[in-house]
Amino acid sequence: MEHSESKIRIIHATLDLLSQSGLSGVAINQVVAASAAPKGSIYHFFPGGKLELASVALKEAGQGEGQWFRGIFHRRESIAQKVELLFTSAANLLEESEFMKGCPVAAVALDLDRDSEGLRPVCREIFTMWQNIIAEGLDEVPEPERSQVAELILAALEGALILARTEATKEPLLRAGRTLGESIGRKFPAAS
Amino acid sequence: MEHSESKIRIIHATLDLLSQSGLSGVAINQVVAASAAPKGSIYHFFPGGKLELASVALKEAGQGEGQWFRGIFHRRESIAQKVELLFTSAANLLEESEFMKGCPVAAVALDLDRDSEGLRPVCREIFTMWQNIIAEGLDEVPEPERSQVAELILAALEGALILARTEATKEPLLRAGRTLGESIGRKFPAAS
Repeated sequence: MEHSESKIRIIHATLDLLSQSGLSGVAINQVVAASAAPKGSIYHFFPGGKLELASVALKEAGQGEGQWFRGIFHRRESIAQKVELLFTSAANLLEESEFMKGCPVAAVALDLDRDSEGLRPVCREIFTMWQNIIAEGLDEVPEPERSQVAELILAALEGALILARTEATKEPLLRAGRTLGESIGRKFPAAS
Repeated sequence: MEHSESKIRIIHATLDLLSQSGLSGVAINQVVAASAAPKGSIYHFFPGGKLELASVALKEAGQGEGQWFRGIFHRRESIAQKVELLFTSAANLLEESEFMKGCPVAAVALDLDRDSEGLRPVCREIFTMWQNIIAEGLDEVPEPERSQVAELILAALEGALILARTEATKEPLLRAGRTLGESIGRKFPAAS
């Protein structure tokens, strides 16, 4: 029991560091400091070291954020409302972190190099899972187009997170969500 | 003359490293190795070290990519065609780099922490400049809405670059450009 609590603390500390500065932000010593876990326990739980730890933490975030997407896109609302809600809640989360923590998957994706190539499929699977969850909630969009509209929503969200983090305000996310929601809503009006 | 050639090589090497793995990818020793410039010359040209070097390299990239945006958005084409062209040429550039080099400004923005806070205004100014250049070319969009549509285009581009880099294919950029171009084009048809 004690072990699994340490493990959870280690994973959460890693995720925090990944969200702040990507893979480069995750050094075992920083995880030790942030999780208050003994250094030995990190290698005990994650014998693969930093990359294994990052992989487990990303998958955890992937599941958690997937639930969040599902909660939004399974609502009985218009596509424009769902998109706006997605961007607004992302803006609120970013603000809560004082604009320091973005999407950990995007942060890792932009740090991928030869040494961390093993994390590419992890990032890809998470993005695909999120895209599928969004696509399932796009009732107004004809089936064959759902996947690409979901991909655009995810891309715009990730990009607007970068702009909002850079400006340290919620506005880029709020504006992008509104403009995208209206544009897609116009293209795919609700069946009446 | 020799000095200024070294300086240019140093800036380009820094930009390459920033585009690959953000700020964490830029260590003075790596810049030395990649630029074949003597270590002393780096501190000679950039007494502020890594952060000054990153700032100069980002501004250089900001200007260069700004020209590229201008070339696309000053064309006499529809908004949908311009957006598609933007995403297609970004996809081609990404492919040329073997999917290793993304947008250096986004990569730095996601690495910002207390130590690199000084680069936040640099990133912000570049994003704003790009957004303004795009906005100027959105002839079909009513003046008061141009800025937010330009911001959405930039956000979607940055996000699709992340998805395409993760998948190591051009497709996410090509699809997002097409879907976004069509959606915006539908919302803002050409005045006839």
